Amino acid sequence: MYEGAVQDLIDELGRLPGIGPKSAQRVAFHILEADTEDMKRLAEAIVTVKERVKFCEVCFNVSEGTRCQICLDERRDPSVICVVEESKDVMAIERTRSFRGRYHVLGGSINPIAGVGPEQLHIRELLSRLSDDAVEEVIIATDPNLEGEATATYLVRMLGSIGIRLTRLASGLPVGGDLEYADDVTLGRAFEGRRSLTADS
Amino acid sequence: MYEGAVQDLIDELGRLPGIGPKSAQRVAFHILEADTEDMKRLAEAIVTVKERVKFCEVCFNVSEGTRCQICLDERRDPSVICVVEESKDVMAIERTRSFRGRYHVLGGSINPIAGVGPEQLHIRELLSRLSDDAVEEVIIATDPNLEGEATATYLVRMLGSIGIRLTRLASGLPVGGDLEYADDVTLGRAFEGRRSLTADS
Repeated sequence: MYEGAVQDLIDELGRLPGIGPKSAQRVAFHILEADTEDMKRLAEAIVTVKERVKFCEVCFNVSEGTRCQICLDERRDPSVICVVEESKDVMAIERTRSFRGRYHVLGGSINPIAGVGPEQLHIRELLSRLSDDAVEEVIIATDPNLEGEATATYLVRMLGSIGIRLTRLASGLPVGGDLEYADDVTLGRAFEGRRSLTADS
Repeated sequence: MYEGAVQDLIDELGRLPGIGPKSAQRVAFHILEADTEDMKRLAEAIVTVKERVKFCEVCFNVSEGTRCQICLDERRDPSVICVVEESKDVMAIERTRSFRGRYHVLGGSINPIAGVGPEQLHIRELLSRLSDDAVEEVIIATDPNLEGEATATYLVRMLGSIGIRLTRLASGLPVGGDLEYADDVTLGRAFEGRRSLTADS
């Protein structure tokens, strides 16, 4: 539809996730009208990220070195490993400042429909980290959806026999939410996982 | 939050229109995991568009030359000029294949809140095109919203006295839509602009 370069850009943008044809067109026209220096910076940021950013050889979090900042940080507790699907999840947990252990990024979740089995995830590398006696607890923090639960179940089966404490993040009502808007499964989980407020139990 | 290059990319992406912080993060991680050659192509497409694409000196449509393909096309009727806000609108009208005249891209609409007055739009250039006797009709195809209507009103005031036929695109019910879901203003316009289906009027 458009002349060469504009259409090329719309096509390339349209391949990015969550950017449909209309958005691709809007972003392309923004790029056309934006400051040239700003847009060169965007293009450089894309190239730089591909050149510089790799994955940590220990935990598979994104990293500019062979090991990520968290794995290099001596103050992080090596006895607890929190297993997540993606680097994004590491950042979400880091923002809470409530976890001071290490991470292990699986690189996704088990999803037979998308052709992702356990062998495509960094599960073997997790097992070899656990052979180190330092690890006392593995927190399974995969997403609370179908694929994340399947992955958690698989990990429990793999790790259940090696004598390390396995835990799963609590499911329940989101803080700040309304009970009446909670879906049935979440509300059911909130009941199952109810905490005692009295000292006796 | 993230290490250097990843955060830089998220920041640059987040400045694009319609891409919020969450989307910027998702797109950044997609770029991280995508094929390097594909992502270099995206970066090049951004740079190329900034280097190669300019605006047509006649109608201000996007163009890789000094004049756009439509202005260069001798078969396009020079007696009708369709005035639109953006190049995107040119493409939308071209897709209908129902207009064979020329265009004039204003580069936006009058919007006092955003500080856009008539002098920021290519209205002066439109007037000088109209001094050529070839033009018989100007179709005002600005958006049917507040800013587009204000721009149309301004254009009618500017061009009303120079003896050229001025028309405005019809407002009414969208084809394929449901009458009951139409907003009041659109439904009102559809009544005002109703067409006779009998031969007598």
